[in-house]
Amino acid sequence: MKAAVCYEFNQPLVVEEIHIDAPQAGEVKIRISACAICHSDIHLLKGEWGHQPPLVAGHEAAGVVEEIGPGVTEVQTGDHVIVTLIRSCGRCRFCTIGRPFNCAGDFKLDHESRLRNAKGEAITQGIKTGAFAQYAIVDQSQLAKIPEAMPFASASLLACGVITGLGSVTRTAQVKQGSSVAVIGTGGVGLNAIQGAALSGATPIIAIDVLDSKLEAARRFGATETINAERTNVVEAVQDLSDGYGVEYAFATVGHPEAIMQATRMVRKGGTTVIVGMPASDQALFTIDTHFITEGRQVIGSNMGSTRLLVDIPRLIELYAQGRLKLDELISNRYPLEQINEAIASVLRGEALRNVIMFD
Amino acid sequence: MKAAVCYEFNQPLVVEEIHIDAPQAGEVKIRISACAICHSDIHLLKGEWGHQPPLVAGHEAAGVVEEIGPGVTEVQTGDHVIVTLIRSCGRCRFCTIGRPFNCAGDFKLDHESRLRNAKGEAITQGIKTGAFAQYAIVDQSQLAKIPEAMPFASASLLACGVITGLGSVTRTAQVKQGSSVAVIGTGGVGLNAIQGAALSGATPIIAIDVLDSKLEAARRFGATETINAERTNVVEAVQDLSDGYGVEYAFATVGHPEAIMQATRMVRKGGTTVIVGMPASDQALFTIDTHFITEGRQVIGSNMGSTRLLVDIPRLIELYAQGRLKLDELISNRYPLEQINEAIASVLRGEALRNVIMFD
Repeated sequence: MKAAVCYEFNQPLVVEEIHIDAPQAGEVKIRISACAICHSDIHLLKGEWGHQPPLVAGHEAAGVVEEIGPGVTEVQTGDHVIVTLIRSCGRCRFCTIGRPFNCAGDFKLDHESRLRNAKGEAITQGIKTGAFAQYAIVDQSQLAKIPEAMPFASASLLACGVITGLGSVTRTAQVKQGSSVAVIGTGGVGLNAIQGAALSGATPIIAIDVLDSKLEAARRFGATETINAERTNVVEAVQDLSDGYGVEYAFATVGHPEAIMQATRMVRKGGTTVIVGMPASDQALFTIDTHFITEGRQVIGSNMGSTRLLVDIPRLIELYAQGRLKLDELISNRYPLEQINEAIASVLRGEALRNVIMFD
Repeated sequence: MKAAVCYEFNQPLVVEEIHIDAPQAGEVKIRISACAICHSDIHLLKGEWGHQPPLVAGHEAAGVVEEIGPGVTEVQTGDHVIVTLIRSCGRCRFCTIGRPFNCAGDFKLDHESRLRNAKGEAITQGIKTGAFAQYAIVDQSQLAKIPEAMPFASASLLACGVITGLGSVTRTAQVKQGSSVAVIGTGGVGLNAIQGAALSGATPIIAIDVLDSKLEAARRFGATETINAERTNVVEAVQDLSDGYGVEYAFATVGHPEAIMQATRMVRKGGTTVIVGMPASDQALFTIDTHFITEGRQVIGSNMGSTRLLVDIPRLIELYAQGRLKLDELISNRYPLEQINEAIASVLRGEALRNVIMFD
């Protein structure tokens, strides 16, 4: 099959023929139809997350079940599915308490790859998936079924960016109707945090970014107020927009320490800061002063928007079908696999919400 | 009346006659019967919290209502009460949502003092109280009634240390039966966090300190496991005691940045670190790495154990009467006001859980 292989960090991916094995027990082989480019792929391909080439990135995908391994019960050949990086065993002490996104189970796929290149070298499946390729083999728990009528490109976005942003609001923080919300960063994740706040009935919903064009997009996704951080003292501006005390919830969807620090400062007493954006590995994030204690604030890390695929994906699909969840609007451009380097360069230039690789 | 006045930081308090006014609208004058010495008093008297002398510290007190100001509805002359620093208006947007401990109301007592010395100088009422004195004037919201039979010294501890430690577990974190808990620091606040964990049915309850004698006390207050931090890698030891993953809740009851950092490391995925101990003003507390996000952890600042006096104090008094809440055991020594400097020195030497100043 064709795949876009990273042989050296920060160098163009090599689109070439590689070998993919058959799925083993509990595993499923998917024919990939669409795979979006997420910033986590960029981190991985820059070498910021410690994995070593050769590897295939891509983890925000949708496609069709091609072949199932022994013991697979949740999907059948021909099912349309999204392919996520949330691998869960269902039996560990995190899955058992309803946190499959923190699964501590051990999988063969944690240690083995089903990919080899023409020289016989093992190729790592990046971010537990490896979907910049015509096929991918993942654990059955990483899949969620979608209706056949749903476009693959739109569906692929549900696999990571949408649930990460939207879930950080609806699941991690469990924002309630009437809560005040600020979102720092209005990229793919930030827009979905805004969208989640709008769906939850939050008000005001304050979008913060440095580009007016992105803030306009934020308004389309539900922001009621916008702040250009280049021109304004962000913390004071947020306080002014939330009766002087700050918002109840602030979401940091970009990994810059400065943004995270601001997100801890702009919440009111008893307020919650949710850290959503992933910085490079091991980067120290922020410090908190004594006001954090006296004002009873909290900070939560949101992993994959605390998403339970089986529960959350069907509801998001319903909202999409009802016209209440924007997905198509997140897609900037579509590219064939052969043009993946161009697609990534466009993301790096900050031009795209989501660029999607489309397969035949 | 007699009061112990601080004229210079880090110098002995001066016990002298000073003048106290009559209570104004909504205010109550209390004849102090007992006032415990809390570490916050020490911070204040070292000049670490930015207030200026002359001032009277003392904020963990109990006594008898001597005189009520106009409009006071909640207590009557002769009522036995505890005197706390939680001043709440009942009408602001924090009181309204059940967070009186974050009250944003404005009080005359925030800007004025009812104390003057013989020279006519205004003397600040430290930590909203000023109870190292025979009388104190506070807002009626700072009081909670106690039964006449309850000893004042034991009751005084409910005003700050007990609710701060116990409430951080039962109210801020809302620990549930069967949860795993670690408590760093086993001073007055830490022992009460342990006591709160025991009352909540937590298991294991891991106490961490550097003195074996304090760890023995921790066992008496409900710790099921103890770790001497001088001899052990604390984070690994906690993980070993909680099936390898760490505890669900860790409470940092000492303000040292190192302890706080450990408390963020010893919780499992999805776990909660509660910061209870107050360091000196504006001291940066800690940094958090990317694991905080990927593992979906959270950090909460606990202000006064998120205590609602009207709800929580009567229940704690019931538990005390039933023999289920230890208060008497927290009292190390009793001193008359004239020996307050000796009582403080004993606290500074780490000898005391709580030293209590007793008035006639």
